Amino acid sequence: MRLEYLHDFEDLVLSGLTLSDALDKIEGFHGSVAPGILMGGLMIDLAQELIGASILYNVVVETPYCLPDAVQIFTPCTVGNNWLKVVDYGRFAVSVYDKDNGEGIRVWVDLNKLEHFPDVFNWFLKRVPKKALPLEVLLPAILLAGREMFSYGHVQVFDLAWGVKKGDVGVCPACGESYPVNHGKICRACAEGPYYRAADE
Amino acid sequence: MRLEYLHDFEDLVLSGLTLSDALDKIEGFHGSVAPGILMGGLMIDLAQELIGASILYNVVVETPYCLPDAVQIFTPCTVGNNWLKVVDYGRFAVSVYDKDNGEGIRVWVDLNKLEHFPDVFNWFLKRVPKKALPLEVLLPAILLAGREMFSYGHVQVFDLAWGVKKGDVGVCPACGESYPVNHGKICRACAEGPYYRAADE
Repeated sequence: MRLEYLHDFEDLVLSGLTLSDALDKIEGFHGSVAPGILMGGLMIDLAQELIGASILYNVVVETPYCLPDAVQIFTPCTVGNNWLKVVDYGRFAVSVYDKDNGEGIRVWVDLNKLEHFPDVFNWFLKRVPKKALPLEVLLPAILLAGREMFSYGHVQVFDLAWGVKKGDVGVCPACGESYPVNHGKICRACAEGPYYRAADE
Repeated sequence: MRLEYLHDFEDLVLSGLTLSDALDKIEGFHGSVAPGILMGGLMIDLAQELIGASILYNVVVETPYCLPDAVQIFTPCTVGNNWLKVVDYGRFAVSVYDKDNGEGIRVWVDLNKLEHFPDVFNWFLKRVPKKALPLEVLLPAILLAGREMFSYGHVQVFDLAWGVKKGDVGVCPACGESYPVNHGKICRACAEGPYYRAADE
C-alpha cells in the first residue's frame, strides 16, 4: 500500500519491512492503518535493534489497545503462542526481553519528548477531537517524530507469574469442561461466574 | 502448505480458506501448525456458520493458549482492535456474538463427545506424553473428528465490562506516563507494582 501523504517516508524500513509492506500487513491484520499501530511499530523496531538479532525474545505490552497488534504484526510473538503478554496498565509501553533470563528493554512514549510534536501529543492525550487530526496529518507526524518521542530503559522482567506451565488438565465437576487443575477445585468460570448466560435462561 | 498425512482432507474449507491456505496462515502467524489452532479453527468455522454471514461479531475466548491465535487467523477480530477478548478460565471455548446486542454462539469441546476420538481426547486432557502423539497422527485425528467433538449453545454475552470506552487520558503523577484516568489517581503499574524492575536498581 502506498499512501501519497507518506511519500517522504518511502525509504523507511520497519522491523525489516518496507513501509509499503508494513502498511499492507497492518491493514490486513488490524483492519485499518491505525496511528497507534504505526507508533507501536516504531517502538518495536527500536526495541528489536537494542536487544539485538541474536536474542530469542518475548514481549509484554502495557495496554490492550493497538500495541498488541503492532507486536503481532512486527514480531513472531502472539497472544496464542504465549510469547506476548498483555497487562492492562493503560500505558503505551512495550518490553522486549530475553525469554531465558528476563533481561530486556522497555520502550515507552515519553511525554516530555512528545510535546515537541504537537499533533502527535494532542492525539495521544486526546486533547483535540479525533477529526481535527485526519490520518494524512497524523501518520506523517508520527513518522516524522519517529524515535524522538520515545525513551527506553534496561529492565529485568519478573516472569515467574507467567512462566508457569499449564500443568495437569482436569474436568470441572461443575460444568464438565476441561480446565487446568492449578486453577482450583472448579474452573474459574464456575467459581467467579462467566461473561455470558445461556440465551434460554 | 501441503501435508501428505492430511491428504484425505484436501477439500476441507475452513473459514473460507482451503486447508492448504489455512495451514500456511497458521504457520505464518502462530509459528507452527499447532493442533490447538486447527481445533480452534474448526470451532470458529462452526460458530461463524451458526451466527451467519450478515452479523458483525466480536469474540471471547476462554483460554490464552492457542485459541486467541485461531481467532486472529480466521476472523477479523484481534486483541489490539479489541474485537477479541481473552478471559483466562482455562477452558477451550469460544463465543462469537453480535457486537451490537451481545447475542451469540458459544462453542466448546464436549468431553462426552471427545471421548469417541481417543487420540484427540488423550492429547486434549494430557493423558499421554506429547511424543506419543506426533502431528501426523494428531492432526488427521482432529480433522476426522471435526465438529463431532464440539457442542454449542446460544448465549447472551455481558459486554458492559469490556464495552467501556477508554475515556480521558491523563498523566500519572507517579511515573509521568499517560494512562486512562478511569483507572484511578495513579496508573495501575504504580498502584500495583509493575512486572519488571529497572536493570540498574
